[in-house]
Amino acid sequence: MKYPDIPLTRLVAFVEEDAPFGDITTESILPAMSCNAYIIAKEDLILAGLSEITALFTHYGVKTDSTLSDGISIQKGTRILTLSGSVHAILLVERTALNLLGRMSGIATKTREIQGKIAAVNSCCRVTATRKTAPGLRLIDKKAAIIGGADPHRSSLSDAILIKDTHRTILTLDEAIRRAKSASLYHLIEAEAESADEAVQAARAGADIILLDNMKADQIRETLDQLNNEGLRECVKIELSGGITPDMISEFAALGVERISLGMLTHTVRNADFSLEIQR
Amino acid sequence: MKYPDIPLTRLVAFVEEDAPFGDITTESILPAMSCNAYIIAKEDLILAGLSEITALFTHYGVKTDSTLSDGISIQKGTRILTLSGSVHAILLVERTALNLLGRMSGIATKTREIQGKIAAVNSCCRVTATRKTAPGLRLIDKKAAIIGGADPHRSSLSDAILIKDTHRTILTLDEAIRRAKSASLYHLIEAEAESADEAVQAARAGADIILLDNMKADQIRETLDQLNNEGLRECVKIELSGGITPDMISEFAALGVERISLGMLTHTVRNADFSLEIQR
Amino acid sequence: MKYPDIPLTRLVAFVEEDAPFGDITTESILPAMSCNAYIIAKEDLILAGLSEITALFTHYGVKTDSTLSDGISIQKGTRILTLSGSVHAILLVERTALNLLGRMSGIATKTREIQGKIAAVNSCCRVTATRKTAPGLRLIDKKAAIIGGADPHRSSLSDAILIKDTHRTILTLDEAIRRAKSASLYHLIEAEAESADEAVQAARAGADIILLDNMKADQIRETLDQLNNEGLRECVKIELSGGITPDMISEFAALGVERISLGMLTHTVRNADFSLEIQR
Amino acid sequence: MKYPDIPLTRLVAFVEEDAPFGDITTESILPAMSCNAYIIAKEDLILAGLSEITALFTHYGVKTDSTLSDGISIQKGTRILTLSGSVHAILLVERTALNLLGRMSGIATKTREIQGKIAAVNSCCRVTATRKTAPGLRLIDKKAAIIGGADPHRSSLSDAILIKDTHRTILTLDEAIRRAKSASLYHLIEAEAESADEAVQAARAGADIILLDNMKADQIRETLDQLNNEGLRECVKIELSGGITPDMISEFAALGVERISLGMLTHTVRNADFSLEIQR
Amino acid sequence: MKYPDIPLTRLVAFVEEDAPFGDITTESILPAMSCNAYIIAKEDLILAGLSEITALFTHYGVKTDSTLSDGISIQKGTRILTLSGSVHAILLVERTALNLLGRMSGIATKTREIQGKIAAVNSCCRVTATRKTAPGLRLIDKKAAIIGGADPHRSSLSDAILIKDTHRTILTLDEAIRRAKSASLYHLIEAEAESADEAVQAARAGADIILLDNMKADQIRETLDQLNNEGLRECVKIELSGGITPDMISEFAALGVERISLGMLTHTVRNADFSLEIQR
Amino acid sequence: MKYPDIPLTRLVAFVEEDAPFGDITTESILPAMSCNAYIIAKEDLILAGLSEITALFTHYGVKTDSTLSDGISIQKGTRILTLSGSVHAILLVERTALNLLGRMSGIATKTREIQGKIAAVNSCCRVTATRKTAPGLRLIDKKAAIIGGADPHRSSLSDAILIKDTHRTILTLDEAIRRAKSASLYHLIEAEAESADEAVQAARAGADIILLDNMKADQIRETLDQLNNEGLRECVKIELSGGITPDMISEFAALGVERISLGMLTHTVRNADFSLEIQR
Repeated sequence: MKYPDIPLTRLVAFVEEDAPFGDITTESILPAMSCNAYIIAKEDLILAGLSEITALFTHYGVKTDSTLSDGISIQKGTRILTLSGSVHAILLVERTALNLLGRMSGIATKTREIQGKIAAVNSCCRVTATRKTAPGLRLIDKKAAIIGGADPHRSSLSDAILIKDTHRTILTLDEAIRRAKSASLYHLIEAEAESADEAVQAARAGADIILLDNMKADQIRETLDQLNNEGLRECVKIELSGGITPDMISEFAALGVERISLGMLTHTVRNADFSLEIQR
Repeated sequence: MKYPDIPLTRLVAFVEEDAPFGDITTESILPAMSCNAYIIAKEDLILAGLSEITALFTHYGVKTDSTLSDGISIQKGTRILTLSGSVHAILLVERTALNLLGRMSGIATKTREIQGKIAAVNSCCRVTATRKTAPGLRLIDKKAAIIGGADPHRSSLSDAILIKDTHRTILTLDEAIRRAKSASLYHLIEAEAESADEAVQAARAGADIILLDNMKADQIRETLDQLNNEGLRECVKIELSGGITPDMISEFAALGVERISLGMLTHTVRNADFSLEIQR
Repeated sequence: MKYPDIPLTRLVAFVEEDAPFGDITTESILPAMSCNAYIIAKEDLILAGLSEITALFTHYGVKTDSTLSDGISIQKGTRILTLSGSVHAILLVERTALNLLGRMSGIATKTREIQGKIAAVNSCCRVTATRKTAPGLRLIDKKAAIIGGADPHRSSLSDAILIKDTHRTILTLDEAIRRAKSASLYHLIEAEAESADEAVQAARAGADIILLDNMKADQIRETLDQLNNEGLRECVKIELSGGITPDMISEFAALGVERISLGMLTHTVRNADFSLEIQR
Repeated sequence: MKYPDIPLTRLVAFVEEDAPFGDITTESILPAMSCNAYIIAKEDLILAGLSEITALFTHYGVKTDSTLSDGISIQKGTRILTLSGSVHAILLVERTALNLLGRMSGIATKTREIQGKIAAVNSCCRVTATRKTAPGLRLIDKKAAIIGGADPHRSSLSDAILIKDTHRTILTLDEAIRRAKSASLYHLIEAEAESADEAVQAARAGADIILLDNMKADQIRETLDQLNNEGLRECVKIELSGGITPDMISEFAALGVERISLGMLTHTVRNADFSLEIQR
Repeated sequence: MKYPDIPLTRLVAFVEEDAPFGDITTESILPAMSCNAYIIAKEDLILAGLSEITALFTHYGVKTDSTLSDGISIQKGTRILTLSGSVHAILLVERTALNLLGRMSGIATKTREIQGKIAAVNSCCRVTATRKTAPGLRLIDKKAAIIGGADPHRSSLSDAILIKDTHRTILTLDEAIRRAKSASLYHLIEAEAESADEAVQAARAGADIILLDNMKADQIRETLDQLNNEGLRECVKIELSGGITPDMISEFAALGVERISLGMLTHTVRNADFSLEIQR
Repeated sequence: MKYPDIPLTRLVAFVEEDAPFGDITTESILPAMSCNAYIIAKEDLILAGLSEITALFTHYGVKTDSTLSDGISIQKGTRILTLSGSVHAILLVERTALNLLGRMSGIATKTREIQGKIAAVNSCCRVTATRKTAPGLRLIDKKAAIIGGADPHRSSLSDAILIKDTHRTILTLDEAIRRAKSASLYHLIEAEAESADEAVQAARAGADIILLDNMKADQIRETLDQLNNEGLRECVKIELSGGITPDMISEFAALGVERISLGMLTHTVRNADFSLEIQR
């Protein structure tokens, strides 16, 4: 999957949030003048957000130049983007650009690392993002995760059908899947199962994906065995979630599941470190 | 400082982002019915975001009840908020509410912990947030940091004047401060100094705060000494920033500075863990 | 599937479009006074939009009363909604409310009629809406079609994967399905087939739904036979589209397909007729 | 009257509605590549919306070329617009563009046809649109009707004064017109009359236009005669509305009235048929 | 003419403009507490904006009480509105409310005074506002002028047709009016005339209103005479504009014209003086 | 201080306010054609708003040319800006452009005049604007005042801390300043003092600026003396406000204060006079 573009109007709104009444420092002390500047990576990382910040600087009249592109691996010290134009415009956009680039590259870098661990033990397994993104940043966080190699999972509640424990307090699994199937043909149906028996039941009822949430490795193995024994393993995909940390990921991937979703990809983000330097 | 309210329209926009065409799961399988639910903390934390999610559930017609308030310390297992109303509304808002609550409490919890370390060694020193927030979430991230005990620092480029290295490539420190002072009386002037000499120079030129960025402890000590020797220490406040990690914070606070700003308060966030349970 | 609510802000924007500088007639000639009014159906129809206009009048301070609900069958002359409040508010909202109610009920009524014809000959077949809605009214048009009994199909390009002839000019069917499958587990894959052979090919490649666009009845039969012969009929759902008019619908439904999509459900709308009467 | 431009921001919002999280099909399966494409009319029609979709494709970086312009008569099979650029951009905008073009051309085509019938029998008579447009599409629907040859009538409640039966339940006709005249000089006054006597009364009171709603041909003739007899026919324009179908239009136009308003121009729209073809 | 309501969302946006990151003073120093307050007029004035600020305080949870209403004459020292609620909310809204109330009452007061001078010499003449309003405040400025007794004139370029000198550089007066008449029946036609001859020409061509811009009293008299002599005076209304100051208004009104438009009503505004007092 | 740019989206919204359904006059009567035009100053003034209207015309496809820039002194009759492009676009934007230019230049001109008076008697004193701007026009009004030479003062409630009489009804001056100081280091603290004693008290408590509101010249002198006597004069800046009219300004400036704030700079605006002429 490639990556949807973030609409420019949203990016511009980020700059306006950071300067509701202008950049009073730069306006107070610097004359209108041109300068050259560049953005530099201050650590090794997977680049994400370059196309967004390029669009943003361009919108503010700053010329940009780069030979890189989102998704590539960058070493500490690499110049990401060269800028030339009004120093007022460059400094106005600076922090917003670095925040975007840092967040997106931070997500992409961690995702790539985890996906690497998974691929090393199970070529059919992918890490997936969740809806645990920063509020308002769904598109940005998902795009970063896609760049890092994740399956994006649902973008929103309007995408796929996911029957969870909250629904199960009200409805049986069978009934829930039956209703979901009759509602629309065009959306995939995933159902959470809390035991091997439930997984079998969900597969029989026609779920496309079964979510094993917070299961231990033994339980997962047992569930896969039972699905196999019933001849249902080919009919469904298996997603794991809940309490899986990066260091457990290889073990879980090796169990032979198709997806492992990690909320931490987007809810526990460490921004990658970039800085902007003015050239004299 | 108390905390500005996040306008409801922004909170509602977060829900609409998560459901551009509705919650197709719940709409497909659950009837229109009422239920009770509650939100529970799944770890020890400082609560932040309660007033926001209360406003949000209320907007969607869900009744809320809580005896808690933002800023208090919560133990794992505590029920944060009780909800009663349409199960469709509760599940529509669930993820957005948890994302907000998790991010804000995550920031508040980490901030409180760091501020505690600082206060233990220097009662005049405060941790401060930066503008390194998630794009579009400035108000939310700053409010969470304030709840955690931070000085919010600048909210935006329109707030206070901060003369940084980027400006310094173009202007001398003296000239920059002189221009800033003549621009407006109503904004504080902070200037970055890269050496003890520069700090003295900035203090003489009339800066209100001096930012020592990426200085080692020795350099900081030397700078403070030199300011003292020149009789300038009382005229300025000192802020440290750059490369300070939580475990170094006590050492730096003990140097006798007024502020230590940590970008990681808001740019490296681990969401606090909450869940929503439907009651039968 | 139940129906997502249309956010109130969008409904209010419709009123503001109709009165950028107020209702100059009513403001010029009528005093501020209360009145009672009602909305009446001027033809037999399936009601849709009642919850929207109720929310709208309520927003403008008008009290509403109704014993009806969206989705029911209404006879000509039925009072849909009783209003009481400021005559200025009622007349300000009148046309917007009637336009919404008329469009939604028009879509629902036609959909119900067509779905009735289908159900009479094939209980597993459903009519489906398309993305051929009025620009900006996707949610409104889809909701009306759902109320009428349609499967809503994709809400947007972000929902399900649909490989069409435009993609096929660039990629083979096999390659397209293979890439789609590897992109994400969480979205259904539908592929257009232009012949029985292609349908078999798509089914083998793993498409979930096969779209037979602009095929004649004979071709469809042949395609279904061939899928049956290859043992693939159970693996896929079949959707028909293209050039099917309401009077041909029974014949096509009887062929044993699962879905028939009709763009005309939402692109060729006749508003149902309602009027608002002021009571003296 | 020429035609106001639809602001680009509204057109872009239509695309964003259709792809809140991108075009997942094209992003999943097609590489970033350029292509040529064209839009073709699949029936005879009056072209409307070309300038809008040209602006839209241009906004998304697609080059456009056309020798046609809105308002001309097009034969089935005509290439409307040639496109060249990113296949991702072209397919992202495709459906929105076709929906706009289809709706606007559908309205323009029907309007032109009806206006032709009217002009054949009465060169002073014009068909007029109403405010019965799709919600949110007032400007688009009115522009299409203008392109088709209609008088646009009021754009909104803020335009002209139109005293209707709803106002008449509260005020006498004389009093209503008197108040309207004293409110503002700058807005035309139209009043609904339900009988020949009322028409005379409205003309005497100073209405500029008299609306005869739901009158039969005989009543209309009688009303015109009576206005003539009283020497008032020259002082007012006459608009007919209510229950007039396209096949009755010639008869009514021949009665010698100035305007016939048809809600169905914009509330009962059949989209004109266009398709987009990718060229290899 | 009564007064359109200003949509609440616009009023709230004014408050958000004044506090993008909250009211840092009040948040820093005052606890969450209730108080009573009132708004007092500090000069004699015509009240306008009371309904807007009442809506605004109510939106922020403040209770309001007043026995007054827009349009009445108020003496210095009068309490306009009593408030009770959160001191944070009251102080957050204070300045926005006073700015709105001050601007609207300032416009209404001046308008009422000028309209009084006019009415004293010519009961058929009214002062009218223009489109020379503060950008973005058309509705607010027009509403204030209406409250003061003005005819609001066009609200926007979409209202009435006004043929000015700029159009006349391209088209003859006759041709311009002819085209305007054929464009739409539903909009009034006003034409600027620069001489008595042109006024006669415009009246003959069918203009509804003739605008005499920047004419001296003698020229106006001559124009009115000539229109009278030609029997055209009854067919048109006369509006004066251009360079008329309040002290000349009686003389011009006495000439027997219907309207005198004054840009200064809305482009040269002195805010009326109000203050908000907290009660202990 | 230089001047923040007004975001283009806000400027475009002003045009859309003035033409929700197009410019019906120009659309009705003028063909699509190009023309040249220019904007001319009709009085002596300080130019402000040129960069805004240039951006606006450019956005609508009109070419602009000017050798002038904001802040310069212009004589009556000067051509400000030359335009060439579609006559429809030029006339669509005309009124909005003139309203913006007129308001901004009106504010700048008055500000420059007052600042001139101040500078003649006290080179350290500056006039300052207030938050008494037209609602929604904060940025525009402040920018105009800055161009005229004013210190912009607070842009909003989020900027600096200003402790006023309203806060003082609840808190003592000492306590208010103490709390403000502990809330954040990054915002200046200004406190209103009603007597010489209070001024001393505020200075001792650490206020950066003392606001003397509505004080007579004698009181101000006494206050300055007392601050001097206590050795506190150097520690604080003094701002005067309240009831100071332009003709009193020299006297007050000569007292030796740093700032004089005048609400009338932005709340009592006389638009500067410009006109747009079409060239044939």
